[in-house]
Amino acid sequence: MSMNVAQKLIQSHLVQGSMVPGKEIGIRIDQTLTQDATGTLVMLELEAMGLDRVHTELSVQYIDHSLIQEDYKNPDDHLFLRSACRRFGLWYSRPGNGVSHPCHQENFGKPGKTLLGSDSHTPSAGSIGMLAIGTGGIDVAMAMAGQPFFTKMPQIWGVKLTGHLPEWVSAKDVILEMLRRHGVQGGLGRIIEYYGPGLDSLSAMDRHVIANMGAELGATTTVFPSDQEVRRFLRAWQREQDWTELLADPGATYDVNEEIDLSSLEPLIAMPSSPGNVKPVREVAGQQIYQAYIGSSANPGYRDFAMPAMMVRGRRIPERVSFDINPTSRALLETLMRDGHIESLVHAGARLHQAGCNGCIGMGQAPATHELSLRTVPRNFPGRSGTREDKVCLVSPETAAASALTGKITDPRTLGISYPHIKEPNDPIINREMFVAPLPPEEARKVELVKGPNIVSLPVVEPLPDVLELPVLLKVGDNISTDEIMPAGLRALPYRSNIPRIANFCFDVIDSTYAQRALKQARGHFVVGGANYGQGSSREHAALGPEYLGLRAVLAKGFARIHAQNLINFGVMPLYFLEPSEYDAIEQGDVLRLSGLRHALEHGHELTVENLTRKQQFRMRHVMSPRQVQLILEGGLINWIKDNLTHPSSHAPA
Amino acid sequence: MSMNVAQKLIQSHLVQGSMVPGKEIGIRIDQTLTQDATGTLVMLELEAMGLDRVHTELSVQYIDHSLIQEDYKNPDDHLFLRSACRRFGLWYSRPGNGVSHPCHQENFGKPGKTLLGSDSHTPSAGSIGMLAIGTGGIDVAMAMAGQPFFTKMPQIWGVKLTGHLPEWVSAKDVILEMLRRHGVQGGLGRIIEYYGPGLDSLSAMDRHVIANMGAELGATTTVFPSDQEVRRFLRAWQREQDWTELLADPGATYDVNEEIDLSSLEPLIAMPSSPGNVKPVREVAGQQIYQAYIGSSANPGYRDFAMPAMMVRGRRIPERVSFDINPTSRALLETLMRDGHIESLVHAGARLHQAGCNGCIGMGQAPATHELSLRTVPRNFPGRSGTREDKVCLVSPETAAASALTGKITDPRTLGISYPHIKEPNDPIINREMFVAPLPPEEARKVELVKGPNIVSLPVVEPLPDVLELPVLLKVGDNISTDEIMPAGLRALPYRSNIPRIANFCFDVIDSTYAQRALKQARGHFVVGGANYGQGSSREHAALGPEYLGLRAVLAKGFARIHAQNLINFGVMPLYFLEPSEYDAIEQGDVLRLSGLRHALEHGHELTVENLTRKQQFRMRHVMSPRQVQLILEGGLINWIKDNLTHPSSHAPA
Repeated sequence: MSMNVAQKLIQSHLVQGSMVPGKEIGIRIDQTLTQDATGTLVMLELEAMGLDRVHTELSVQYIDHSLIQEDYKNPDDHLFLRSACRRFGLWYSRPGNGVSHPCHQENFGKPGKTLLGSDSHTPSAGSIGMLAIGTGGIDVAMAMAGQPFFTKMPQIWGVKLTGHLPEWVSAKDVILEMLRRHGVQGGLGRIIEYYGPGLDSLSAMDRHVIANMGAELGATTTVFPSDQEVRRFLRAWQREQDWTELLADPGATYDVNEEIDLSSLEPLIAMPSSPGNVKPVREVAGQQIYQAYIGSSANPGYRDFAMPAMMVRGRRIPERVSFDINPTSRALLETLMRDGHIESLVHAGARLHQAGCNGCIGMGQAPATHELSLRTVPRNFPGRSGTREDKVCLVSPETAAASALTGKITDPRTLGISYPHIKEPNDPIINREMFVAPLPPEEARKVELVKGPNIVSLPVVEPLPDVLELPVLLKVGDNISTDEIMPAGLRALPYRSNIPRIANFCFDVIDSTYAQRALKQARGHFVVGGANYGQGSSREHAALGPEYLGLRAVLAKGFARIHAQNLINFGVMPLYFLEPSEYDAIEQGDVLRLSGLRHALEHGHELTVENLTRKQQFRMRHVMSPRQVQLILEGGLINWIKDNLTHPSSHAPA
Repeated sequence: MSMNVAQKLIQSHLVQGSMVPGKEIGIRIDQTLTQDATGTLVMLELEAMGLDRVHTELSVQYIDHSLIQEDYKNPDDHLFLRSACRRFGLWYSRPGNGVSHPCHQENFGKPGKTLLGSDSHTPSAGSIGMLAIGTGGIDVAMAMAGQPFFTKMPQIWGVKLTGHLPEWVSAKDVILEMLRRHGVQGGLGRIIEYYGPGLDSLSAMDRHVIANMGAELGATTTVFPSDQEVRRFLRAWQREQDWTELLADPGATYDVNEEIDLSSLEPLIAMPSSPGNVKPVREVAGQQIYQAYIGSSANPGYRDFAMPAMMVRGRRIPERVSFDINPTSRALLETLMRDGHIESLVHAGARLHQAGCNGCIGMGQAPATHELSLRTVPRNFPGRSGTREDKVCLVSPETAAASALTGKITDPRTLGISYPHIKEPNDPIINREMFVAPLPPEEARKVELVKGPNIVSLPVVEPLPDVLELPVLLKVGDNISTDEIMPAGLRALPYRSNIPRIANFCFDVIDSTYAQRALKQARGHFVVGGANYGQGSSREHAALGPEYLGLRAVLAKGFARIHAQNLINFGVMPLYFLEPSEYDAIEQGDVLRLSGLRHALEHGHELTVENLTRKQQFRMRHVMSPRQVQLILEGGLINWIKDNLTHPSSHAPA
């Protein structure tokens, strides 16, 4: 059977299920990527699992998100992550090395391999023929422990590229065109695979731009073939030996089909405040801007900086414009300096920032009130820049630089300067010594984790007892979101590596006494919820926090899918009322008794609840799979993996 | 009479008083310097005064402190300051240009002139024969309005330099030696003047290092002669025409005398947590460090970066060390790139940050918990780095780089590498276009101030009425500090340009109802205090905030000197009880009546207070000078200057 690139990647890593779109499959993971914002919790999970050493071929921990260091918390995280890399056998990319995705492509990525990352832009590595997927931290921890990654088999969406990009139009405009056509949900449940003759005019880093922002379409991932351009790229990075060819078979087909004629594209812009709000630049030209921002994993290549440098060389950025340059990586910064481009940018008026994610994830460089900011970053969700009611637009480096020069949104074709032709250098400065290799196992075992005062080991979860007789500590209504269960924001987020501390914020906006009352109930408690309990973000802390405070089960009319999964992962039962009236009959403070629990869970989908306070009895339902029941009985995923670590190559529980 | 340099500078600008140490003098101010952290309030004061245009020869507003932009407040401040520069006739140094003090020396400073700055390191410009003094914002605003600066005539402390600095010892070690000898109060009430043959081995930027940290000795300022080295420096910066010779007369004498043989110095280090805690590096060598930090106005010169670059070239900073490079200015960054030094630093493992003050004033780069940070900055007060219980040490660039290379505190003489000889370049890259010149007056008058939502004009203060009949809204005990009157910290400080907003924090730690109660008393109120009311910092907001809320007088047993002055500057009377028992007799809530006020203040030092609630009567005292009484009658300094702006060259009120 003829296969496309995505199918070949999945087929060669399939350990469970079959490749029928919509059916669950398990995939073997070769490499993992974590960054510092999500990595600390992953490392605490590895510690709690009792993992000795990662089972992947390669795992890399990057420090690129939290580089500002307003106080001890970020630098403590850096030292903790370094110690965890030494302990568990990961590569450590030190602060200053740069953004994970391009660094990974340049230094570690291999065609034909799978990559799982706790960052939503992990799919960038699809640029060199990898199957690269972003997911939550505990999934990545499981992959490090040798477990497969489970997901529904996506549809494969073939996008044929024809023609050549015109002058002043670049890879960013290709992905903005995809977003213009399909919006931010257009890729849900799909892998996007690009192919066709148009690939010839896209360098490996141009393909990174397109794969990176596949995440903005909601796609599971994006793949490109591994062709002679990928070979050239790896040769330039002195890794030609890591290249293997990976092309779609002749006659390969796709579940969904699309075509883009690159010759027909023009400069595009995503206006505030969604990556899907795309318009031609010419339609919105002339609006005054405050900021032009170059950088991030969405435009990380040499050309993405050299192009603006050539455009502003010998010119001046008007005094009112903040022209912010965020080098992708240490290596790129060195290469751009060697070639004189950073000098051109700085002399013209640029502010040169440290290598890293920076303003793309709201770490500085926020725009002024009501002022337009043009950025080459992947996302412009409201407030992501740090300014609550911001006006951020997504553009190519050409459009950003043209607008910086005029102080207004400007189509670069109208600037009246000659087009600078830039080639990706075949001799980039490489500084691989700055990536610290894993210690040998015998040395690694001696390493102690280095924990600053804000880094606290994950609490141990007890296996499920056969009887639970506990009070209902909180009763809430319908549609409670994870923001209400566990707030984000500056007050709570700095404590992401400190579950006991962050647990104090649980349900704070609904009932500020909950955490204190829960801590007084040493034996545990229940929460009663309405419909759609746990809607919203996928944050694991909304399960981990209440679990730490003693939550053993949530009794609700219904659950949001991801939050129910998170509860189970951390050993908390999601139970469904059979009748809404049973919800009404329970009051906050009632003591409930669930007995014969283990047998009931293992042999059926219903169990009996006694309301001791009201002397009533009713039945509840669960919808857990046998695998999930096993997790609950053992006290969650971390306990399960602890018990199964001796068989790292085994599948997940049946 | 033979005069030293300091005396010549004062003599040529003296508009009031005579040069007798300890006596008040008034000095004409030629130039002013403001930075963004203090400048917004200065500009609001200019607005409140109704100033049309600055009366100085030159005033420059720098943006160097608040560059991180976590939200809209900092970028809004930048746009506001730009508009204020355009409105009032100041130079505007855009974000990214760099740190005020070295930029001022390079681009604006002139031998023989006076400079007043709202930054404590303003004395740096003493390096080129200026009289440069740091002070509070309203003093600088007054200077911009053409008023003299008043201070007590300092003693002149002559420090004769002999010999030559040995290899691996540099200017930083000279000022650390001064701090080792005299501690952080050694310079109080003094101007330090360096002279002698040792000057020959100190470049103009080396002298900047020494003058800068004269502030750490508590000195009023530091002066150097304007000699052939200053001429060379100004020639390199294409400003030789601004040079004039300024040397001490033969036979000039000093009030205090000191000598340093440069040949005898060795590498020094100020250990945590005071600039006065100085030891030889060799005595503390070997301690593990987390961070080596290069940058700030205390080591801003070409050599201060080129030296570490030469030292680390071809070597590697150990992975555990954060090696933070903070370029002084855009121009220096360009020059260092041209000469290959930034590449050497980055390739060896440096993190390159934006040009500005950055970590020196706690804007990022905080060290990890309990970890040593070696910095070339001027100050290591506890917590200034952002990490509350930090361990920051002050060192030369040589010691910082040597320690970065070994990961431990290291005397650079023991490193075993050959000493790199570095000369200040005579062809620095100059980028004066990035400094925006004042608009012509007719254009300036049309400019509107650009105020984001957090920038609010200063409230108007009413002239003092003849009768005040108001309640005592708050009665407090002894030793109330300005931290209790107006807290600093992250919660309150972002509102420094927003008096109505920051006023809500007044007395919050003592009585959180005060601000709300005060706002309900539209006609105003009194506060009753014990002894030493208003001790602590000199922050003007501790007077401005309560004044905004309606405070008209503080009745206390005694006042801290600076706070009393601040109250008067903003139109609030500090009144003294004659007997402590009168303090006891007043209760919070009592209504007091002061009548015949204007006559009483102008013609004596006592006035009568009726306690209407208790039907008692008692006398109070004031110690205001006629000048200060005038300020109170007019409603403070801003009202006074508003009335006197037509005579900008007149003296302060008699």
